[in-house]
Amino acid sequence: VPAAPRTIHDLATPALLVERSAFEHNRATMSAARPGANLRAHVKAFKSTAVARILHDAGHRTFCAATVKEVVGLASAGLGDDLLLANEVLDARRLGAVVRGGNRVTLAVDSDVTMRAAAEGGVPEVLIDVNVGLPRCGCDPGDAGRLADLARSLGLTVRGVMGYEGHLMDWTDRARQAEEVERSMALLLAAHGDVGGDIVSAGGTGTFDINTWANEIQAGSYLFMDTHYAKVGLPFVEALSLLTTVISVNRAGGWAVVDGGLKALAMDHGNPSYAGGEVFFCSDEHTTIVPAPDQPVAVGDRVRLAPAHVDPTIAKHPVLWVVDGEDVVDSWAVDLRDW
Amino acid sequence: VPAAPRTIHDLATPALLVERSAFEHNRATMSAARPGANLRAHVKAFKSTAVARILHDAGHRTFCAATVKEVVGLASAGLGDDLLLANEVLDARRLGAVVRGGNRVTLAVDSDVTMRAAAEGGVPEVLIDVNVGLPRCGCDPGDAGRLADLARSLGLTVRGVMGYEGHLMDWTDRARQAEEVERSMALLLAAHGDVGGDIVSAGGTGTFDINTWANEIQAGSYLFMDTHYAKVGLPFVEALSLLTTVISVNRAGGWAVVDGGLKALAMDHGNPSYAGGEVFFCSDEHTTIVPAPDQPVAVGDRVRLAPAHVDPTIAKHPVLWVVDGEDVVDSWAVDLRDW
Repeated sequence: VPAAPRTIHDLATPALLVERSAFEHNRATMSAARPGANLRAHVKAFKSTAVARILHDAGHRTFCAATVKEVVGLASAGLGDDLLLANEVLDARRLGAVVRGGNRVTLAVDSDVTMRAAAEGGVPEVLIDVNVGLPRCGCDPGDAGRLADLARSLGLTVRGVMGYEGHLMDWTDRARQAEEVERSMALLLAAHGDVGGDIVSAGGTGTFDINTWANEIQAGSYLFMDTHYAKVGLPFVEALSLLTTVISVNRAGGWAVVDGGLKALAMDHGNPSYAGGEVFFCSDEHTTIVPAPDQPVAVGDRVRLAPAHVDPTIAKHPVLWVVDGEDVVDSWAVDLRDW
Repeated sequence: VPAAPRTIHDLATPALLVERSAFEHNRATMSAARPGANLRAHVKAFKSTAVARILHDAGHRTFCAATVKEVVGLASAGLGDDLLLANEVLDARRLGAVVRGGNRVTLAVDSDVTMRAAAEGGVPEVLIDVNVGLPRCGCDPGDAGRLADLARSLGLTVRGVMGYEGHLMDWTDRARQAEEVERSMALLLAAHGDVGGDIVSAGGTGTFDINTWANEIQAGSYLFMDTHYAKVGLPFVEALSLLTTVISVNRAGGWAVVDGGLKALAMDHGNPSYAGGEVFFCSDEHTTIVPAPDQPVAVGDRVRLAPAHVDPTIAKHPVLWVVDGEDVVDSWAVDLRDW
């Protein structure tokens, strides 16, 4: 690969591509709907300070993260105005160091133990993480007030509440989805009444428009989208694809093989899609495709696969190549992956 | 994380662990069954020059790889005695540079186009890759002789044939499996008759003992194993686990949440397993588990998940921590991941 590849034909494959116009459409659409701090952009989706900086420059200076490494990396990149680790940790010392470095860090807590970890690690501000229906983290809504009192007794500032309605993200019946989100957010608002503070943080790409109860939405996948989210009917378009090279064609069998597989594509939402035919199956470093009869491929052709799930696909790559059709116009390091 | 963690409690989680005694059992078992060059250890499984060096020191000086990066990295680590890229590539120039650096590189080819790529890239030796039943790469067995002639006309040395019976790896009925492997290898041996050369390379962890037709076996996963391979009844034991921390416990719901999810675990073979109960579901950075009633967990506990598929799980991590129970005794960088 040249130091500065000019077209996709200069890239070693597999390579993850972002179509610039689609990304920009998605970014602008969300910024219009959720300007400034109404969006707390979720860095877990893309794990890249370069992408975070684009959002920062568009007025979104509050970020949330899923890992300590993401928080540390955002702060190191000068993006530490207001960082929320929207996840519980038992060892908050790396976060405390970020705070002492002059950044603002808020930590989600949902138990006495994680609350004490925040205090002992040197993180002065917390959000009470409330379970709003997804079987994952978050305290019982009825316990939120007690936890807020505990926080204050430990000298912590309670900025408010967060709750993630992750079980409601990808519904295609959006009217029923809205009803369920309202029910879920009623739990969060009740907890907020007990907790106090300015922040009610919730939501994601799939509820960015219908969650009108939270005052900040935690979304990140909308920038790239995937075949899973694409089924929901959101105003965002697919911007991400895996560039591969056809390395083998079996005319008798009707299949072809490309040089990107499940080490380059998240499989938790199923196979990727191939616009020129069907995906037969993915192996570690290969995908076997069945080209449509009127769209045969030849060894050496470059073809794109559409990932089924954006966040973990990006986490498998060291870099995102930004393209305008076949031209490579930029690259964004995925510098916040791993832990 | 300290520079030199002494126990698993010093590690940031999630962290990928290798139980040293289990790894050593697996390594020794294979070395006894397939000594020296009878094993062409497959580096794709672990993507680590540290692991490759252990095999090299145990007498296995021939390696195979799935990516150009793996070949380049092995050579850079001084392990370039005999490297096979068991995969087709269209651009062999990085491999040609490895050859000029004094290493031996052999490239799999299955078409005129990939053959010419080998010659143009400066790779002087090839294996004819033959399709033996898996719908993936490999020429028609009847075309292998013609390809070998083409190779020689281009000035290439043909070292023999390879074929991967990947569709026969994880059968639990081993008698039927052996019959199918024989049928598959009959195709490869017929092609070998047309091609010539010393090498008949095939197999994998799942057929290491019953593929008696190949004179070298391409296996790597046996060193670590996973819950998928564990069902087959091989003499290898599970050595790999994901260390996580319990970050949230929901007593009313009966579940607990640990801080490692599908970004740390390959999902193409399904969920990981949890010995102390059930795995409910995996999210990006979490796994929700249901502890057995007699094995409750508390926030802060460290628990291990067993991955369903070893190769792509390792490829998600920067390092393997080698442990003896709770003691960390070594670390192996996963330095050959990405492309």
